[in-house]
Amino acid sequence: MGAAILSDLLAEILIPAAAAVGIAFALFQWVLVSRVKLSTEKQAPAGKKNGYGDYLIEEEEGLNDHNVVSKCAEIQSAISEGATSFLFTEYQYVGIFMAVFAVLIFLFLGSVEGFSTKKQPCTYSKDKYCKPALANAIFSTLSFLLGAVTSVVSGFLGMKIATFANARTTLEARKGVGKAFITAFRSGAVMGFLLAANGLLVLYISINLFHLYYGDDWEGLFEAITGYGLGGSSMALFGRVGGGIYTKAADVGADLVGKVERNIPEDDPRNPAVIADNVGDNVGDIAGMGSDLFGSYAESSCAALVVASISSFGINHDFTSMCYPLLISSMGIIVCLITTLFATDFFEIKTVKEIEPALKRQLIVSTALMTLGIALVSWIALPSSFTIFNFGEQKLVKNWELFFCVAMGLWAGLVIGFTTEYYTSNAYSPVQDVADSCRTGAATNVIFGLALGYKSVIIPIFAIAVGIFVSFSLAAMYGIAVAALGMLSTIATGLAIDAYGPISDNAGGIAEMAGMSHRIRERTDALDAAGNTTAAIGKGFAIGSAALVSLALFGAFVSRAAISAVDVLTPKVFIGLIVGAMLPYWFSAMTMKSVGRAALEMVEEVRRQFNTIPGLMEGNAKPDYATCVKISTDASIKEMIPPGALVMLTPLIVGTLFGVETLAGVLAGALVSGVQIAISASNTGGAWDNAKKYIEAGASEHARTLGPKGSDAHKAAVIGDTIGDPLKDTSGPSLNILIKLMAVESLVFAPFFAAHGGLLFKIF
Amino acid sequence: MGAAILSDLLAEILIPAAAAVGIAFALFQWVLVSRVKLSTEKQAPAGKKNGYGDYLIEEEEGLNDHNVVSKCAEIQSAISEGATSFLFTEYQYVGIFMAVFAVLIFLFLGSVEGFSTKKQPCTYSKDKYCKPALANAIFSTLSFLLGAVTSVVSGFLGMKIATFANARTTLEARKGVGKAFITAFRSGAVMGFLLAANGLLVLYISINLFHLYYGDDWEGLFEAITGYGLGGSSMALFGRVGGGIYTKAADVGADLVGKVERNIPEDDPRNPAVIADNVGDNVGDIAGMGSDLFGSYAESSCAALVVASISSFGINHDFTSMCYPLLISSMGIIVCLITTLFATDFFEIKTVKEIEPALKRQLIVSTALMTLGIALVSWIALPSSFTIFNFGEQKLVKNWELFFCVAMGLWAGLVIGFTTEYYTSNAYSPVQDVADSCRTGAATNVIFGLALGYKSVIIPIFAIAVGIFVSFSLAAMYGIAVAALGMLSTIATGLAIDAYGPISDNAGGIAEMAGMSHRIRERTDALDAAGNTTAAIGKGFAIGSAALVSLALFGAFVSRAAISAVDVLTPKVFIGLIVGAMLPYWFSAMTMKSVGRAALEMVEEVRRQFNTIPGLMEGNAKPDYATCVKISTDASIKEMIPPGALVMLTPLIVGTLFGVETLAGVLAGALVSGVQIAISASNTGGAWDNAKKYIEAGASEHARTLGPKGSDAHKAAVIGDTIGDPLKDTSGPSLNILIKLMAVESLVFAPFFAAHGGLLFKIF
Repeated sequence: MGAAILSDLLAEILIPAAAAVGIAFALFQWVLVSRVKLSTEKQAPAGKKNGYGDYLIEEEEGLNDHNVVSKCAEIQSAISEGATSFLFTEYQYVGIFMAVFAVLIFLFLGSVEGFSTKKQPCTYSKDKYCKPALANAIFSTLSFLLGAVTSVVSGFLGMKIATFANARTTLEARKGVGKAFITAFRSGAVMGFLLAANGLLVLYISINLFHLYYGDDWEGLFEAITGYGLGGSSMALFGRVGGGIYTKAADVGADLVGKVERNIPEDDPRNPAVIADNVGDNVGDIAGMGSDLFGSYAESSCAALVVASISSFGINHDFTSMCYPLLISSMGIIVCLITTLFATDFFEIKTVKEIEPALKRQLIVSTALMTLGIALVSWIALPSSFTIFNFGEQKLVKNWELFFCVAMGLWAGLVIGFTTEYYTSNAYSPVQDVADSCRTGAATNVIFGLALGYKSVIIPIFAIAVGIFVSFSLAAMYGIAVAALGMLSTIATGLAIDAYGPISDNAGGIAEMAGMSHRIRERTDALDAAGNTTAAIGKGFAIGSAALVSLALFGAFVSRAAISAVDVLTPKVFIGLIVGAMLPYWFSAMTMKSVGRAALEMVEEVRRQFNTIPGLMEGNAKPDYATCVKISTDASIKEMIPPGALVMLTPLIVGTLFGVETLAGVLAGALVSGVQIAISASNTGGAWDNAKKYIEAGASEHARTLGPKGSDAHKAAVIGDTIGDPLKDTSGPSLNILIKLMAVESLVFAPFFAAHGGLLFKIF
Repeated sequence: MGAAILSDLLAEILIPAAAAVGIAFALFQWVLVSRVKLSTEKQAPAGKKNGYGDYLIEEEEGLNDHNVVSKCAEIQSAISEGATSFLFTEYQYVGIFMAVFAVLIFLFLGSVEGFSTKKQPCTYSKDKYCKPALANAIFSTLSFLLGAVTSVVSGFLGMKIATFANARTTLEARKGVGKAFITAFRSGAVMGFLLAANGLLVLYISINLFHLYYGDDWEGLFEAITGYGLGGSSMALFGRVGGGIYTKAADVGADLVGKVERNIPEDDPRNPAVIADNVGDNVGDIAGMGSDLFGSYAESSCAALVVASISSFGINHDFTSMCYPLLISSMGIIVCLITTLFATDFFEIKTVKEIEPALKRQLIVSTALMTLGIALVSWIALPSSFTIFNFGEQKLVKNWELFFCVAMGLWAGLVIGFTTEYYTSNAYSPVQDVADSCRTGAATNVIFGLALGYKSVIIPIFAIAVGIFVSFSLAAMYGIAVAALGMLSTIATGLAIDAYGPISDNAGGIAEMAGMSHRIRERTDALDAAGNTTAAIGKGFAIGSAALVSLALFGAFVSRAAISAVDVLTPKVFIGLIVGAMLPYWFSAMTMKSVGRAALEMVEEVRRQFNTIPGLMEGNAKPDYATCVKISTDASIKEMIPPGALVMLTPLIVGTLFGVETLAGVLAGALVSGVQIAISASNTGGAWDNAKKYIEAGASEHARTLGPKGSDAHKAAVIGDTIGDPLKDTSGPSLNILIKLMAVESLVFAPFFAAHGGLLFKIF
């Protein structure tokens, strides 16, 4: 077997060092962004090029109204306040839930051995003694809370950064599209690096602290650590669902009255729901996505660590090799750091056309560099051969095989990313066909859009299937877990280009609301269109990694619950499978209906304001933004409970009443069905959004025959866009969390289900 | 073990007798329908109450224009000709396919033992010798062709009857809604009984003929008979897909120009696509549905017979018990006969409100009577205890347990039916909520409609899951097969109420085209609205039974391919599962896009005619119906090939390249994912259709606030209806066939895959 080249001490140093570098880099980017001043005082005297080497658009156009700066600052603080207040409200409710669930975890896991404080034989090595189930209960509860808090912090920080950056991006857009791009992208990078480094650091510290108690009981330690993933994902669920309902209720409500009925442009300050809409981008797309990807990252690390602890790494106490997942993530931070420089320093964006290639280059560069990074880590951190636990047996694996697993995940991610881009960018024929179908009205637009989403599932599923087959064949469930980690290894870059989208979207909104030149709006729109595609790509990554993570967690659950086979031919498993495949539909029905209901409330309120506030339509009176913010907040808090309960309770109910085999069926069913709906929903929504933008931009001969804004085809496109909103930003992305969360929850509760589950079958 | 009460001889007599009764009853109903004369000559002199005891509406209104009769006859013959010509064209293409596929079956199955004519050891009883693989190849090919021809005949007959009845229904509507209802329902019954009796009779004769060669080798005989199911379902696939594309291309095309752009009513004779639209109802909903349900019926019988042959029934040569599935179907014909009288003779419909309850009563009465019927058959046709083959073991089963399995399927069907009704009838809140959401436009209508469809999946899936669990636990895979048969035992009634819908739809169209009084149109609209719901119920049955049938076939496949377990935890199975779950999306993308594309072509043509034919809009010139019929025909023939190929080739490719385990995964994945999409697509479409009708009818205070026709809410509802068309009539119902057909194809080719499959894994 041999030992790894990298010494344990060096591994202990390198991991926190990489995290520290990531955090330092994020802070440095923040400093760069904050150099864009949001107050008028410190600006150079008018006419003196404003202290920069660029002319401002206002100056070119002869409009040198420095009021816009303070106006932008004002709008930004309104958005920031709205977002902060919503997140605080949300966290209060979720906090109560977390407390209750923490108690549940403690009680369920503690009861496995009747709260005994005696040592127990280990699950996998029956001849050794492990820490008591009570310790497992306590530490699982602790790591659950730790995961939840880290997730909250990740989401909150992301939101803060985004609302710090949006107005700055608007102001930079006055100087040119390149400057605006760099500001938006750097802000995204702040979030990406903080989140990646933070997740790694907290996990690293927890392992070291838990180690003080657990000593060499790595199995117990890493089983307790899985609570970290559960905490992260539970928070992410509420973040995604609550934020998703918030943002889409506001967006749909604003569009239905503003764009469709009143014929005023998007983000028009006369629209009472406009602030709520912009707040929504930050709490939904930014905070929600942050929590989601953090959850995936935490879970795939936990799944890998659990399997590692019962493989030769854990048995031989080979610390460096056991930390392989963390070392991969450390390498990822360094690789992403270099990649970021390609966007902000090595190249400069001068025209609108360069934006999308620059973002795509980020994906390619990070993937290429990371492949080398993985090879390096696999070479120095792993023995040349070792064994991996595979459902009761130990499978002999070589280090280069593990390299293939991680690289497989990484490249599958790239394939998914580019497929998503192909189906959602208006540079290619699928979206153009959808736009073309608007010619015959909204109905054909919807039919073509749905068909596009269904079709876009094919390649990602094949990519995932090949990834699963290869990594499973090479290194069993450990292979799947590290493949998921491979897909997420470039998470910092992924999040940067992902967060960049809503920031640009907000920047455009602020420009519109501050009454800035339409040329600025054009620039931010171009940034935003590229952002739509990258958002879809980000969702593709999130779903792909969720599929791999869930499978890895599923494998860990099956191992921990000591199920020998999940045979579809047994009725217990099959009914689990078919009901599991139904759950994503149930969940989507809930979330979509929630958005619909909340949007209707918003519509009524916006209409009421237009009808009762005199002078609103003419721009002489200010609308009551606060009421709309409140409607979105209340609706999302109220509506997130049923879908949240569905996801959180299903594993508990199924495991307790029907036992681990049925639960295994449910997990497999939800996984294979959910991943399809999630991909198709995201891509359908993204395609509709960009089909509309395609018609609006009128950049080609074909596009101009469909436009301009306000034409029948454009109206049909707006309807498609509105339908796509809840699909792509609420129900679709929440499904990742559904499949991950049910899997990680089952894993955490596995000892309880194995001991006391299947009550119904025991009674009858 | 003991023997059955019913002697073999009596069973041999009763089965064909029941089939004969069914056929006689169908012919009798036909005679009754044909009493409505379609020629003016034989009518009594004007003013003499037209020879009937009822006043005609024309007479009441003082319009005694007997020209309408000949006009109706003319339109009917146009529809009938269009439908006949389409079906002939379709059958030509499909005929070529069938011939090629028959050769494939022969070659694949014959090659299993190298075309040897020597006897082989039996698959299940290795100590006995069975007929050679070559015989199996020949008889499988034969029964494949037989199934295909029976399916063609079923669909064709249905279409003929429907186009015979539609104008007669229109004419009867002049006398009252009750008369029209009876005519439409009787015509549906003709189709239902002919199909059920025909399917039974052909199967019975084939078994007896094959018996002459096979003798006591029941295993070989029934394995060869599975080709019957494959033939039936392959034809059904092309019927459903081709017919579905035909009908919806015409419907969507006609609506988009007629209703949306030109603001003329549905079925207006000025619309050039109107004949194509009416033809579509007959080739899609009638012929397609007929083939589909015939396929389900044939497959569930085959699946049950295969398992029976390797259970104690077959081993002990217990003919009566082996024919249990056929006896259940025979009983079904008798029960449905009595049930039909409840609709046509025992009660009389006088007002519009009584239509839906009358149709629902059909479902309840047939289910209640059939429960008794099943009990009787189970008592007299089964020994009190026997053994059933269960993946290598023999499981002891009692006759009352089998009664429970069949009844479970029957009642699960009723639950699915009523759930479907709840979600698609505008008498309940779900559809009313969807209608209400039209207030804020098409976007919210679509969001609510999609959510409704997703939600409507929950109860049917639980019903199917409970049905599967109970029948599987009681009698293994045989239990599933007879449960499916139970759900289909009342197929004659199911088809009657199903075919009734499109007949009424056509009747309304004919009334409109013949320029008859709007009061007649109101009556046919009421019939049609009830028909929409029953069509959705019929689709619910079709999907539910398809799920059970597929599972039964899947079990038979696994047994025949000698797979010991389909373990989700093996990578081969898991990748099959996830790719299988993707197939329904791929398939739906193809079919929806096909409809969209064909509809666009139709739109162009209809627009062209409106723009270039002078006087068309004013009603002074006749449109060119034939070109529209040709567009629909050509488009559907061309577009049915890719989805057809996907379904037919997938099992062959997967089985040959990846082997039986991956194929088992694909089947399970396609089953659990496809059933959800199928249910949600059908119900979403049905709900949108009825939401639109709800607004149009304006029967309640709430409905009137949304209407009238032409209001913004109504326009939004029309958009939803148009989107729902391909979902509910093309992609949704075709998915049943996808899951059934892949399963039965795998079963037929199982010996080949087991012998030569998995090439890719063998090479690497």
